[in-house]
Amino acid sequence: MKDLKNYIDQNRNRFLEELFSLIRIPSISSQEEHKEDMIKCAHRWKELILEAGADRCEVMPTEGNPVVFGEKQIAPDAPTVLVYGHYDVMPVDPLELWKSNPFEPEIRDGKIWARGADDDKGQSFMHAKAFEYMVKAGQLPCIVKFMIEGEEEIGSKSLYQFCETHKEMLKADIILVSDTGMIATEIPSITVGLRGLSYLDVEITGPNRDLHSGLFGGAVANPINILCRMITSLTDEKNRITIPHFYDDVVEISKEERSLMAKAPFSLEDYKKAIDISDVHGEEGYSTIERTGIRPTLDLCGIWGGYTGEGSKTVLPSKANAKVSMRLVPNQDSQKISDLFQRHFESIAPKSVKVKVTPSHGGEAYVSPIDMVAYKAAEKAYIATFGKQPVPTRSGGSIPIIAGFEKILGIKSILMGFGLESDAIHSPNENFKLEHFLKGIETIPYFYSYYAEMMKK
Amino acid sequence: MKDLKNYIDQNRNRFLEELFSLIRIPSISSQEEHKEDMIKCAHRWKELILEAGADRCEVMPTEGNPVVFGEKQIAPDAPTVLVYGHYDVMPVDPLELWKSNPFEPEIRDGKIWARGADDDKGQSFMHAKAFEYMVKAGQLPCIVKFMIEGEEEIGSKSLYQFCETHKEMLKADIILVSDTGMIATEIPSITVGLRGLSYLDVEITGPNRDLHSGLFGGAVANPINILCRMITSLTDEKNRITIPHFYDDVVEISKEERSLMAKAPFSLEDYKKAIDISDVHGEEGYSTIERTGIRPTLDLCGIWGGYTGEGSKTVLPSKANAKVSMRLVPNQDSQKISDLFQRHFESIAPKSVKVKVTPSHGGEAYVSPIDMVAYKAAEKAYIATFGKQPVPTRSGGSIPIIAGFEKILGIKSILMGFGLESDAIHSPNENFKLEHFLKGIETIPYFYSYYAEMMKK
Repeated sequence: MKDLKNYIDQNRNRFLEELFSLIRIPSISSQEEHKEDMIKCAHRWKELILEAGADRCEVMPTEGNPVVFGEKQIAPDAPTVLVYGHYDVMPVDPLELWKSNPFEPEIRDGKIWARGADDDKGQSFMHAKAFEYMVKAGQLPCIVKFMIEGEEEIGSKSLYQFCETHKEMLKADIILVSDTGMIATEIPSITVGLRGLSYLDVEITGPNRDLHSGLFGGAVANPINILCRMITSLTDEKNRITIPHFYDDVVEISKEERSLMAKAPFSLEDYKKAIDISDVHGEEGYSTIERTGIRPTLDLCGIWGGYTGEGSKTVLPSKANAKVSMRLVPNQDSQKISDLFQRHFESIAPKSVKVKVTPSHGGEAYVSPIDMVAYKAAEKAYIATFGKQPVPTRSGGSIPIIAGFEKILGIKSILMGFGLESDAIHSPNENFKLEHFLKGIETIPYFYSYYAEMMKK
Repeated sequence: MKDLKNYIDQNRNRFLEELFSLIRIPSISSQEEHKEDMIKCAHRWKELILEAGADRCEVMPTEGNPVVFGEKQIAPDAPTVLVYGHYDVMPVDPLELWKSNPFEPEIRDGKIWARGADDDKGQSFMHAKAFEYMVKAGQLPCIVKFMIEGEEEIGSKSLYQFCETHKEMLKADIILVSDTGMIATEIPSITVGLRGLSYLDVEITGPNRDLHSGLFGGAVANPINILCRMITSLTDEKNRITIPHFYDDVVEISKEERSLMAKAPFSLEDYKKAIDISDVHGEEGYSTIERTGIRPTLDLCGIWGGYTGEGSKTVLPSKANAKVSMRLVPNQDSQKISDLFQRHFESIAPKSVKVKVTPSHGGEAYVSPIDMVAYKAAEKAYIATFGKQPVPTRSGGSIPIIAGFEKILGIKSILMGFGLESDAIHSPNENFKLEHFLKGIETIPYFYSYYAEMMKK
């Protein structure tokens, strides 16, 4: 692959322009108003996959947003790699915190700045360009299938059904995904664990209308006060979750594994400095890496109620709302946890309010064994391009569909993520290091090559 | 005053049109964008006071919104009544809950529907029309001064300074105010107690930017979770406020007075039904009337943080905010309580977050003795028009400037409010019973007449 670096160098401006054409389409899956952008983005992906060298590519309808599926066949006995990615992105608010338009990508300080620059337009597009290189160079050693969906950020609901329906079409030896991060440019890593997720909306209703806080305050339950009290009761002083049976299925990690994890390079001081906090905060008895890697959590992702404008309004509001996210670890069942939450939350509401719990989306945790062929191939690929053996890590994030792939299709996934924590995915000023984008395109062909070689043996 | 009722009947349409011309100006004092509307509304008041028969009226500038001051002199030995009201109104959101445009008054079901219909455009305008009648009928027994301010809903900051500056101009025997309510159309009442207020904004900052709730959740303090925990800790299981020294200055009411209060007509079932709640909620050991009348409270008027849009966003937000309102009882000092709150709230924040407390506005509680001349005159006025002796009540609401008048000008106020709890002041669909508006105009001249008579003795 002597010409690989040259090829990337010579075509990088075109690669970026093509990526930007995807980024410019504001494909926010959680907002109804962007329905047409989803279709537009799917069609743009189709064009790009065909241009990169696929035999065929289609925008396939689902009950929700369409799935882009493309493939290139080679010798029928070659191993099959199914590339998974998503073309939908997160909302962009608060918009005022962005330094440049989230849907007008800019390159500053060696980074691409835009919503989706990393998650997941930038990362999944690396695969299209690595594929293009292998096709053009006549060096494609595997059958390749692309499956790019449009609902990852809202739970991949339609993709579960899509997988059920198209099992034959999706047959593959491994699913290759770039939708995670690595420790640092100098410390490549492969994600071997993902947390599961239960996400729910809760609503507390007190009086049937907003009341004057003076005339009624102190005598009528204030839904904000009540919501705060109910939420607070969900965790104890040790930051353990108090929902009965919440921890029943959590597998405790052995001392050996914990001491191995503790050896991963990590600076608490750098971590705190990067996000400007004086202290970390989490479950007693666990380190920061353990808290996000092997322990379940309960986080409020949003809360609102009453008057939130400028100045003061003396109101006892009718309603208060919150969005609750629980990250789960392997062996916890998302549906079961959502049910436990709902039952418990309803049971702790005082009689003076009404409570409504609406499960939003969820998914299971995933573990990728480090002795599988794909892991070994990925390891060698990183060594080839980064010059270092990658560290296996457990991410605190969730890609629920990854566990779904294993369950429905019986295929394991290998998570070769090239993002960084500082990429601010899901936040204002999302970015993706140009160097990582290009390094990803360079590393992927090595993965294919080693993987095909090892699968032959 | 035989012709009083006739006069009101014959002029009611004009009265309403004039009132509507005030209501149509969206004079929301807490929102910067309505700065010009404040000026417009003040000038419209000036026109209306002059048209009603004042000798002079001026829009007098302050550091904030102007004060409208008008007067009519009669014999210099006549008693002086200073009418106080406010032309500013509360914000209108959530706008979607209004059945008609808040600034386009409508009459439906015998009620005026609009922001300010009761609080306080409707109520204060009754005084202009009662005054007009007395002038036209040659029956004005008192010197009258009007002082209509534009910052009541945001703490009357400029009016305190105005009173300090214009003590001579504002000299009066009594301040007459309609900015409160009565128990029911059939049960007239006079407000003899108002709660004080401390209103503060709090902000909790965790990480310096919104983070991915999966990658960081469980290891980094979530400002929403922390804010909920801090707020929850401010009250205990008995709904008593836990801020150290909060109750130090609260005067406990005697058993005798409490048993008198318990005799006031009040149906808990009707109360719950009117706002559709299954149960009331408040400080243990006190009745609903006591909880709003004689006990201090702590209410959240607003809370916000993280993602509050449709769908789900898995974010660990950087900030969470809340607006806290504490209603105070006589002898509690608003400044002292704000200080106690601030010190305590800052002290309970964990090291993992930053906390900012910003006092917004406040004011002292007020008590009006039922043996003062003005109370007796008001009592007789209600008997003349409602046919019943009014009940003295303590309101849970606050009009901080009332205590300020006593302190700065040395003048007591008499609170002849004609609103109802169902008027939904500060809420969507504010309304004012047409019957009460007209009854107010009718009752006020009797007050002047009895008051002048009693002051002569």
